[in-house]
Amino acid sequence: MTQTTETRVAAEPADPVAVSTVSTVSDGHETQEAAVILAQARGAVDPELRRAVESLPGSIRRVALYHFGWEHADGTPAAGNAGKAVRPALVLAAARALGGRPEQAVRAAAAVELTHNFTLLHDDVMDRDATRRHRATAWKVFGDADAILAGDALQALAQRLLAEDRHPAAPAAAARLADCVVELCAGQSTDVALERRGPGEVTLGETLAMAEAKTGALLGCACALGGLYAGAAPEEVEALDAFGRAAGLAFQLIDDVIGIWGDPARTGKPAGADLAVRKKSLPVVAGLAAGGPAAAELAALYGQPPGSGTESAADLEAIALAVERAGGRDWAQTEAADQMARAVHQLSRAVPVPEAADGLLSLAEFVTWRGY
Amino acid sequence: MTQTTETRVAAEPADPVAVSTVSTVSDGHETQEAAVILAQARGAVDPELRRAVESLPGSIRRVALYHFGWEHADGTPAAGNAGKAVRPALVLAAARALGGRPEQAVRAAAAVELTHNFTLLHDDVMDRDATRRHRATAWKVFGDADAILAGDALQALAQRLLAEDRHPAAPAAAARLADCVVELCAGQSTDVALERRGPGEVTLGETLAMAEAKTGALLGCACALGGLYAGAAPEEVEALDAFGRAAGLAFQLIDDVIGIWGDPARTGKPAGADLAVRKKSLPVVAGLAAGGPAAAELAALYGQPPGSGTESAADLEAIALAVERAGGRDWAQTEAADQMARAVHQLSRAVPVPEAADGLLSLAEFVTWRGY
Repeated sequence: MTQTTETRVAAEPADPVAVSTVSTVSDGHETQEAAVILAQARGAVDPELRRAVESLPGSIRRVALYHFGWEHADGTPAAGNAGKAVRPALVLAAARALGGRPEQAVRAAAAVELTHNFTLLHDDVMDRDATRRHRATAWKVFGDADAILAGDALQALAQRLLAEDRHPAAPAAAARLADCVVELCAGQSTDVALERRGPGEVTLGETLAMAEAKTGALLGCACALGGLYAGAAPEEVEALDAFGRAAGLAFQLIDDVIGIWGDPARTGKPAGADLAVRKKSLPVVAGLAAGGPAAAELAALYGQPPGSGTESAADLEAIALAVERAGGRDWAQTEAADQMARAVHQLSRAVPVPEAADGLLSLAEFVTWRGY
Repeated sequence: MTQTTETRVAAEPADPVAVSTVSTVSDGHETQEAAVILAQARGAVDPELRRAVESLPGSIRRVALYHFGWEHADGTPAAGNAGKAVRPALVLAAARALGGRPEQAVRAAAAVELTHNFTLLHDDVMDRDATRRHRATAWKVFGDADAILAGDALQALAQRLLAEDRHPAAPAAAARLADCVVELCAGQSTDVALERRGPGEVTLGETLAMAEAKTGALLGCACALGGLYAGAAPEEVEALDAFGRAAGLAFQLIDDVIGIWGDPARTGKPAGADLAVRKKSLPVVAGLAAGGPAAAELAALYGQPPGSGTESAADLEAIALAVERAGGRDWAQTEAADQMARAVHQLSRAVPVPEAADGLLSLAEFVTWRGY
């Protein structure tokens, strides 16, 4: 597996600076390949995506255009930073890997991206997150009501794209995407519930299941939709789904490691940001669950209420060290590697010819190991 | 048009007391016919609806079961009061009127009802409404996050029902329903925006357009879906949509009149409830827009901040009288009659044989004139 050194920001192909960073610092051809695939997906899907968003009426259109980075808060055009396009790229790459024609799956890819962004808009309202893609979140700028309504409208647009798609796979894709939305909602509901509990009242199994529902489900669905549009057999579609889910879990594990030990200069977040808010991320929950004196020490530190910005860097470093001593960091890295191995195995079931699987594999490695 | 005297509660066919009230106090056969149609629709659609809701995972299922009145807040079974089933009844009645087989449109009817309830869950969060169908709203019981997520999941379930429906009209119905959701969101967004403005800064045209988007659009969509499932011609489908929209506007106008002058014993709301919160309902905006000294007097009264429950009944009566003097009540009643006439005209375009249109007409009159 190629470990790359690009930052979170550098993974945004819409940003020319970031793309050049990728090409200069990357040390593996997968990274370059993934960057090309992501940029191609963005180019293929953006017109469909933008046409859908532009079709929205009144203030909802403004919120959506802002959220996608196509407009500033005052309605003037913006350069655009609509995210990494990982999910649409997975749809198109899966269609290609299974012998389909990716250009036929562009609407499905746009539907997946609309669904992802609907959940971001709503999650930011529920989690009271103030920034997203280096800008104020939609609810911060336009209020809760318009952010909720823009999310609702994006979910509707996603299903609309599939409803008007004459491809024979469209109804099955629509049903699968709807099922995925239900799973995403259940994952977010569990996340909110877990964050309200005390640090000792959350099991590792619950946290992993939540991460799979919240992050793995839509990556799996994206791959499955690509398979459906290629006319893949049901067992191939399920293997693609399992591939995406495992890669999604690997991504989340590494993302949680970065949230504690990531370099602020690279992540764009203050050091130990997840610890400062006492987030029950996977390494923390694993450390708490490990038992023994190190876990007890961590539990004592994590049981103290967050300092709302008053904790010193040394305090946060002490917590990070406690997670590490309790084995949370090692566990997360090992588990991430296991999940990537599982992803590779599922991919080989869906796509036996290694060359055909290259694109999907590059994407999985790119999203998982970026910034690490 | 038959004016009936049943209350808001009496329009709930799921409540045996209410149904008996309808049959004893009604003075027209349309009311009885409508009550039968509504009860039949509830019976046909409930199993599909309940199966969909029961398929939800974890806490989201509990929120949805509570919202539909099938469970109490503590998860124990409840008698059920899932609303009047007006929208599913319109789907089935429109299918029948156009020569289709209503039993083929049951999934579409359930999808419309799920969509309606998704918007109720979200609107209650945004409007901070504390009661719905005589119970605490879902966000009051389960918190904002789970209410938003349950709404998101119901939207997904609605599209799932259509995606798995093998009827040839299903894709067109799914696209139409998605478009309707966008319009509903735009209507709610406008409603929130208008409520934030001062009473003199809202035009009657804006308020009517908002009411059409928020209330008329889904009633129109329900009728249109019934037409699609009957294989109706495009112009018939559009006439059905226009019929439902006009009936929806008539309903909203009368609902707003009831919100000011309705008998609390019948409406289950305190007298002048809409005035106490300074709601910019249609009669109020019409009165404000009328000009002259009566409108100025109303503007002065409405410009005072709401008394947050401290206003006396006499204060609210004085505002109600000011709306009436400014012509708001007469305008709303005349406009409601005009919209019903428009609905009848559109219905005659879609369904030229009067007997075939009977069911739809009864439903339109029932929902519009109930409680008045």
